[in-house]
Amino acid sequence: MTAIPPPARVGDAVADVDTPALLLDLDVFDANVAGLHGEVARHGGRLRAHGKAHKCSEIGRRQVAAGAVGLCCQKVGEAEVFVAGGLRDVLVSNVVVGASKARRLAALAGRARVGVCVDSALQVAQLADATAEAGTRLDVLIEIDVGQRRCGVAEPQEAIALADAIAAAPGLALRGLQAYHGRAQHLRDPAERASAVAAAAARARVFRDALVAAGHRCDEICGAGTGSYRNELTSGLYTELQAGSYVLMDADYFANQPDPAAPPLGQALSVLCTVITVRPGHAVLDGGLKTFAVDSGKPQMMLPGWTVLGLSDEHTVIAPGEGAAPLAVGDKVRLAPGHCDPTVNLHDWFVAHRAGRVEGLWPIDARGALF
Amino acid sequence: MTAIPPPARVGDAVADVDTPALLLDLDVFDANVAGLHGEVARHGGRLRAHGKAHKCSEIGRRQVAAGAVGLCCQKVGEAEVFVAGGLRDVLVSNVVVGASKARRLAALAGRARVGVCVDSALQVAQLADATAEAGTRLDVLIEIDVGQRRCGVAEPQEAIALADAIAAAPGLALRGLQAYHGRAQHLRDPAERASAVAAAAARARVFRDALVAAGHRCDEICGAGTGSYRNELTSGLYTELQAGSYVLMDADYFANQPDPAAPPLGQALSVLCTVITVRPGHAVLDGGLKTFAVDSGKPQMMLPGWTVLGLSDEHTVIAPGEGAAPLAVGDKVRLAPGHCDPTVNLHDWFVAHRAGRVEGLWPIDARGALF
Repeated sequence: MTAIPPPARVGDAVADVDTPALLLDLDVFDANVAGLHGEVARHGGRLRAHGKAHKCSEIGRRQVAAGAVGLCCQKVGEAEVFVAGGLRDVLVSNVVVGASKARRLAALAGRARVGVCVDSALQVAQLADATAEAGTRLDVLIEIDVGQRRCGVAEPQEAIALADAIAAAPGLALRGLQAYHGRAQHLRDPAERASAVAAAAARARVFRDALVAAGHRCDEICGAGTGSYRNELTSGLYTELQAGSYVLMDADYFANQPDPAAPPLGQALSVLCTVITVRPGHAVLDGGLKTFAVDSGKPQMMLPGWTVLGLSDEHTVIAPGEGAAPLAVGDKVRLAPGHCDPTVNLHDWFVAHRAGRVEGLWPIDARGALF
Repeated sequence: MTAIPPPARVGDAVADVDTPALLLDLDVFDANVAGLHGEVARHGGRLRAHGKAHKCSEIGRRQVAAGAVGLCCQKVGEAEVFVAGGLRDVLVSNVVVGASKARRLAALAGRARVGVCVDSALQVAQLADATAEAGTRLDVLIEIDVGQRRCGVAEPQEAIALADAIAAAPGLALRGLQAYHGRAQHLRDPAERASAVAAAAARARVFRDALVAAGHRCDEICGAGTGSYRNELTSGLYTELQAGSYVLMDADYFANQPDPAAPPLGQALSVLCTVITVRPGHAVLDGGLKTFAVDSGKPQMMLPGWTVLGLSDEHTVIAPGEGAAPLAVGDKVRLAPGHCDPTVNLHDWFVAHRAGRVEGLWPIDARGALF
């Protein structure tokens, strides 16, 4: 839980929310959940919604209520928050290194179904020791590199060696492969995304067949994200899809040309700021680099005619163009973040709104869960 | 206060700190405080240390114990945290808009000496109303634009109009001018920084003289930062210097050619990460865009021979070059952040260390104080 007070009260008009504040449009959120969950269900797929984008147990509970089999996350601390928030099935879709983190995962597995990814013998040894000590059992996915060129083993014989070590540990249960191709999410052309995912699936199939041939089970092939989920869904291979940003959306995802076969996703996330200074040729907003992550580009003004010129720590400078309505000191404006995940991690509350009113104040309870 | 547990215990070896973690080298920190505070004192200047970089009451208390007259910050929420943390003299060195924020400032002024900047009539009216209601008194600086092209009034007659309104409000006391030139901090050539600050001081002098000629007091001329503070210090005009990053330092400040007359500042801030994957040609660390702000460039590896290739939300990919010592899964490495302020804001604890041991765990108690 957070020590920062919420910037509004339930029932307030959105115009009265203190700023800067992270807004979540509930009509769009609900439509995004219905659209993506419905598409996954139509194809008989399973969604394990990714919580790293929202870091919010309330959203996780809603995703599970709407059919997700569980949540995934990237950090042990996020998994602890989600289990404390009532989620009963959480996968850390990331390799986790360190004896203390392994002990925390093993302890958490006594309270919920918990999974984790591995790509090295050290991790398997740490997880084996921790589960033996705790007397619990963890699900394990072997992470493979299917084109992301980041974590993951590169060759099937490495995966078999890890599977052998997992099989020798009573507290570890090999569930399958983590085959995430993050770069594919952000290829702009849907044909390129489809091609990248097809190549990833082909590679995952090689690993799966090698594990099965070596006598191991490999029931789950996990991966996918908002930008490409329909490709993995229809691949005939992936079993659990890990889309997460679909509930929020950001400018970077909207820069993709959409897959015409996928239901459209709307922009549910925005940031409310106040105009604090108006000068000839520019105005200044009360949020900057501590309000918006800029790794995938600057936030975009949602008020027509206004453009973001630049950000400093606490300020965003905007400029009017053709047809820009004038702004006055005290006016409030909304911006679409460039990248939802690290932007959400800067805030402590989602201000969930509908029809111009605050309907909920949802703590971003896994914010800052770095380790 | 934070709900995130600290990543270490006092007395732990630094090598045993959980990762990612924000490290503060106390020998370097102490030398930076002694160096800059000493230089300011030698010239008879006053330092009002900026807390927006560290957001940590413990550091603020140490700055005041080492001679700073008080702290500044950018947000009402930061001021509330610093006053709760025992600081008795806090300036919000930023324009603040909104009736609820004005009421919080007026309430805070009942517990400490509190100042704020203004550049519009609306703010003066809101602060006048709030102090009248609370029965308290706020110090006020008129922010002027001296080259930053962000907030601040542009013409002396605007400042006089604001000063007239401030004089009419019993709860507001005009102290002088906020004349900050942030861009000057980051000009690489010391001669360019000196020239920019000289121009800013000349402009501030015009405003001061105009206010005095109109019958107003203008005792304080405030501004400056780590990159240029010695220029303001020796300007014969600036009375209070607002340097803050000097206690931490970052790669962006080190990219400046230093002022040869200023005492050297060392890199006290670093981030400790664990190697989670090692592949031929690259390795992966367990911190990414939620651990490092990248607005001023990627973090830099402190281990010779290794270079940061790129960051994603939870990962940093590094590559070995000439003379790079090999890394193994589980090894811990340190990185220098590109930009200290927004990086610190991603963390909940400073792990203060000396001689390889954790000496203190300092909560970043104003982290996330966005409004």
